[in-house]
Amino acid sequence: MNSSLIDAVGMTGAVLTTVCWLPQAIKIIRSRETRAISLTGTLAFTVGIVFWLVYGLAITDMPLISSNIVTLALMLVIVGMKLRHG
Amino acid sequence: MNSSLIDAVGMTGAVLTTVCWLPQAIKIIRSRETRAISLTGTLAFTVGIVFWLVYGLAITDMPLISSNIVTLALMLVIVGMKLRHG
Repeated sequence: MNSSLIDAVGMTGAVLTTVCWLPQAIKIIRSRETRAISLTGTLAFTVGIVFWLVYGLAITDMPLISSNIVTLALMLVIVGMKLRHG
Repeated sequence: MNSSLIDAVGMTGAVLTTVCWLPQAIKIIRSRETRAISLTGTLAFTVGIVFWLVYGLAITDMPLISSNIVTLALMLVIVGMKLRHG
């Protein structure tokens, strides 16, 4: 693969693994039903995203910083809904 | 931050955002209950992980390759359970 195709593949991965949390957040906001969601897993993912964000800031990598800020915001909504609705 | 600390922060993020899918998979395997999980979001995340894996292979990055293989395996379990239990 040439380098611009490789970049496009990485960017597609970054966008998909970020925007995917929007339908998940919307679903549980609408239904107020979070039983199937693992609190342990969701908290581990959220803390992991904080580490990715700190890593992105430390190496000044804009794709890492921007995608992890968006993901973190959506995860805080999901964690909040899980804590509220159990 | 010095570079070994930065690496440790990035590795912690990678490990957390990978292993977090194990408690989620275990939870829905045990309960056979997946209603709160968004199929759209889960599929988008899974396809995103495939792109991250292809990107990792293209740039020969072992942390990306190994963490995304593990995540993909766990996501296929979660997608399978979602398709089966609705």
